[in-house]
Amino acid sequence: MIRILFLGDIVGEPGRKAVIRRVPVFLKERGVDFVIVNGENSAAGRGITAKIAIDLLRAGVAVITTGDHVWDQRETASYIETEPRLLRPINYPDGAPGNGSIILDTAKGKIGVLNVQGRTFMQPILDNPFPAASIEVDRMRLETPVIIVDMHSETTSEKIAMGRFLDGRVSAVFGTHTHVQTADEKILPNGTGFLCDAGMCGPEHSCLGREPEPIIKRFMDNLPGQFPVAKWPVRLCGVIVQVDPNTGRALSIERVSEMVEEA
Amino acid sequence: MIRILFLGDIVGEPGRKAVIRRVPVFLKERGVDFVIVNGENSAAGRGITAKIAIDLLRAGVAVITTGDHVWDQRETASYIETEPRLLRPINYPDGAPGNGSIILDTAKGKIGVLNVQGRTFMQPILDNPFPAASIEVDRMRLETPVIIVDMHSETTSEKIAMGRFLDGRVSAVFGTHTHVQTADEKILPNGTGFLCDAGMCGPEHSCLGREPEPIIKRFMDNLPGQFPVAKWPVRLCGVIVQVDPNTGRALSIERVSEMVEEA
Amino acid sequence: MIRILFLGDIVGEPGRKAVIRRVPVFLKERGVDFVIVNGENSAAGRGITAKIAIDLLRAGVAVITTGDHVWDQRETASYIETEPRLLRPINYPDGAPGNGSIILDTAKGKIGVLNVQGRTFMQPILDNPFPAASIEVDRMRLETPVIIVDMHSETTSEKIAMGRFLDGRVSAVFGTHTHVQTADEKILPNGTGFLCDAGMCGPEHSCLGREPEPIIKRFMDNLPGQFPVAKWPVRLCGVIVQVDPNTGRALSIERVSEMVEEA
Amino acid sequence: MIRILFLGDIVGEPGRKAVIRRVPVFLKERGVDFVIVNGENSAAGRGITAKIAIDLLRAGVAVITTGDHVWDQRETASYIETEPRLLRPINYPDGAPGNGSIILDTAKGKIGVLNVQGRTFMQPILDNPFPAASIEVDRMRLETPVIIVDMHSETTSEKIAMGRFLDGRVSAVFGTHTHVQTADEKILPNGTGFLCDAGMCGPEHSCLGREPEPIIKRFMDNLPGQFPVAKWPVRLCGVIVQVDPNTGRALSIERVSEMVEEA
Ligand SMILES: [Fe+2]
Ligand SMILES: [Fe+2]
Ligand SMILES: [Fe+2]
Ligand SMILES: [Fe+2]
Ligand SMILES: [Fe+2]
Ligand SMILES: [Fe+2]
Ligand SMILES: [Fe+2]
Ligand SMILES: [Fe+2]
Repeated sequence: MIRILFLGDIVGEPGRKAVIRRVPVFLKERGVDFVIVNGENSAAGRGITAKIAIDLLRAGVAVITTGDHVWDQRETASYIETEPRLLRPINYPDGAPGNGSIILDTAKGKIGVLNVQGRTFMQPILDNPFPAASIEVDRMRLETPVIIVDMHSETTSEKIAMGRFLDGRVSAVFGTHTHVQTADEKILPNGTGFLCDAGMCGPEHSCLGREPEPIIKRFMDNLPGQFPVAKWPVRLCGVIVQVDPNTGRALSIERVSEMVEEA
Repeated sequence: MIRILFLGDIVGEPGRKAVIRRVPVFLKERGVDFVIVNGENSAAGRGITAKIAIDLLRAGVAVITTGDHVWDQRETASYIETEPRLLRPINYPDGAPGNGSIILDTAKGKIGVLNVQGRTFMQPILDNPFPAASIEVDRMRLETPVIIVDMHSETTSEKIAMGRFLDGRVSAVFGTHTHVQTADEKILPNGTGFLCDAGMCGPEHSCLGREPEPIIKRFMDNLPGQFPVAKWPVRLCGVIVQVDPNTGRALSIERVSEMVEEA
Repeated sequence: MIRILFLGDIVGEPGRKAVIRRVPVFLKERGVDFVIVNGENSAAGRGITAKIAIDLLRAGVAVITTGDHVWDQRETASYIETEPRLLRPINYPDGAPGNGSIILDTAKGKIGVLNVQGRTFMQPILDNPFPAASIEVDRMRLETPVIIVDMHSETTSEKIAMGRFLDGRVSAVFGTHTHVQTADEKILPNGTGFLCDAGMCGPEHSCLGREPEPIIKRFMDNLPGQFPVAKWPVRLCGVIVQVDPNTGRALSIERVSEMVEEA
Repeated sequence: MIRILFLGDIVGEPGRKAVIRRVPVFLKERGVDFVIVNGENSAAGRGITAKIAIDLLRAGVAVITTGDHVWDQRETASYIETEPRLLRPINYPDGAPGNGSIILDTAKGKIGVLNVQGRTFMQPILDNPFPAASIEVDRMRLETPVIIVDMHSETTSEKIAMGRFLDGRVSAVFGTHTHVQTADEKILPNGTGFLCDAGMCGPEHSCLGREPEPIIKRFMDNLPGQFPVAKWPVRLCGVIVQVDPNTGRALSIERVSEMVEEA
């Protein structure tokens, strides 16, 4: 049995510090074998830098997924070419920097991770994620049945459809992007674990990781503003799925949601 | 102390039958004093009819809220004028049929319910929900501090901003519309209960209450189709908030998510 | 030299009657060799029927293009399989009914027509129109350099980008969908004729072919309504491009905008 | 009779230089009494600066309107408070910097200018432009019947609806924002001049004023990029409306579209 921890969008310095502090605990004390995090907001809420990716990987993260904010930091387009453990959505047109999937060897066998982005209410409009994910899953299954999918998407309908679409072909489909964890964890009829959104690793007293007041003001006055990342404490949100390494089926799924105080 | 049950979007016949069967149980056996449901998808997934509203009210529902699907059934525009317990979003321009709020007398004092609709990624584009809600809350608080808000909205950011905006002025802000329950129930710093989305009262094996296969097909081929409501069993999703009737503050908040089999 | 008339979205009965009456005049008296019309709103503003398509073809129309309204009439999905002169956007995923392009023999040589749909602010979200158009143009150019493209799209930026993208590879790119003719007719640097939107063949005193009052009311009250097609007279809008049959280059481009009174 | 020149969105340095050079010619040689320009893209394509506004006003521009790009330059929020001839859309919530309308005394009487922004496919979502415009027009008509409206909006339907809505109450409604001039200039039944989009004062060989290649690349690869303003020559697009100063009715309307070479 493989225990995989998947953490939702990391927001800003508090979010990444909390992740870096807690990931070793999950690996050493809580029986987790493999850690995936979505890092698209780890650099002050906008994208990810090489330094941050390195820090996350050194802390024990195996794979970093992203989403619509993947290119927010200019250096990412070149850095991603050098670091295959940093993914961008698979459904970019051919020729985009980096990769949308990876398969890593572990002590418990090969584990694949696939990153895909939805299109409803999202920018930019990428290629259709359904055939793109299907083709890549077929390819990955030649090597391993243990595959975790990060479906980065705004609407519940597109995420649930992806979960049902890949049910039985991957170990789990976890949504990201809304920064709020959903309470619908389940194992779908054909054995795929599912959670509509993993939630966020970021400041608890916030609006998607940012100070709420400027966001409220923006909704009120429609004027531009600054939207700083909020402060500690952090809530670390994600999900642990236990997977049968022979079949790739999810055996159990459990939400993770824990408060982390500033050190 | 007042115990209020708020149930998310009811979808189709299975959803409303489950609600009608379970609401009396909540009222008689589980100490609930007041029941609010979002009924915007109760008529085959599209809107609500007079007959359905009457059935829900007769089962013990006190107030029915709605959202972007409120007018899907043509009869609603006239029926809503005769039934003040059926709400539409408050932030329609002046002159819209029906009302966006109501205050009801109960054995435990007056309880107000306010329905408001977000604008990000939503159609139609209504008036700004923030000042609309603020003004109505001010008015309602002249009569009672016990106020429950249904914020019908697509994005987590707009729902969280509304929760924070009204924190301390209403008893609870509950999101609806995404049909997936979130796991972020909390009492905000100034005493307002909050849940980003209450979830759905509809078929468990579904995509937002509808059969998944036609939805997946639609994402794949982009062609029109039929999207029938799925079958039993139903998951009944919502939240119970306990409110201090003197201050209107939320004392506790608890998610509800229970499976209901066909009778 | 080939003279090709391209007419914008036909709206409702007035629109199609005007087109049916005027097309023979263009063919017989005004030196036009080939007529293309966009018929996506010809059936009471929503889609097209077999009967209407037959009437248009019998009047002398060579090819009918469409857009986001192509499937509004249920019969279209089967009819389009029997009538190759009725096109739907090429960038539907594989397996969609019908075709997105056609090449027809004429007395002046082969003429190709390609229909493609933009994605910005459009539903459904089809495959990327740029590579889809590029591949199809390559294929068509094996048979003829005379190719007219209907780029059905909301934004000026996506239409202009398509024009520039195909400049030198097709005879003309004409936008449709906004129902308002633009005044930017030109021959691009490499010989492709361009007009950002051909405009509409529909009621002059209207909002996109429909009675203005219910549309205004909708913008004011955000309530559902009926939006009937407006009445005569019709303005018939389009463009005439003269093409060198040997090179496919546009030699001249001229907007068409004429009033047609009820017979 | 008053002759008013209205010029569409000025893009970048070429656009504003062309406007500054040509406005005096319109005023001195072509009988124009009053010049309005939309300046929302005059600062390198993004917003407007104090210096640019001053240069435009010194060249003879009477009023500068804007739109969704009004706040792109940070200094605008403070500068607009000092310069009433620089407008922002009227339908910002109360408290926004600056004003959405102005009435100026001229040798031919008072002339009012109103700036309003549509909501369909536009960010931010402002208050409903229809009642906002109606109320402001009522107020302005207490002083003068000569009123020109800049309706800054994406869709043809919202712009046409605004034209019909204000028909008979203002002298003209001119759309802006799409950067492509439409060919539908007309006088509406009750005397209001109308043009769905005035077009752009910016580089002719461009995509909305910017170099086409990076825009095409963006549509192809969905990756971020730089989108520099294109080079000379400029096409100066707008409209001249002749207004009866006593009734405010439009007597004639004529599109302006002229090429301006670099000096
Ligand atoms: Fe994110
Ligand atoms: Fe995201
Ligand atoms: Fe709903
Ligand atoms: Fe809804
Ligand atoms: Fe159309
Ligand atoms: Fe269309
Ligand atoms: Fe602009
Ligand atoms: Fe604009």
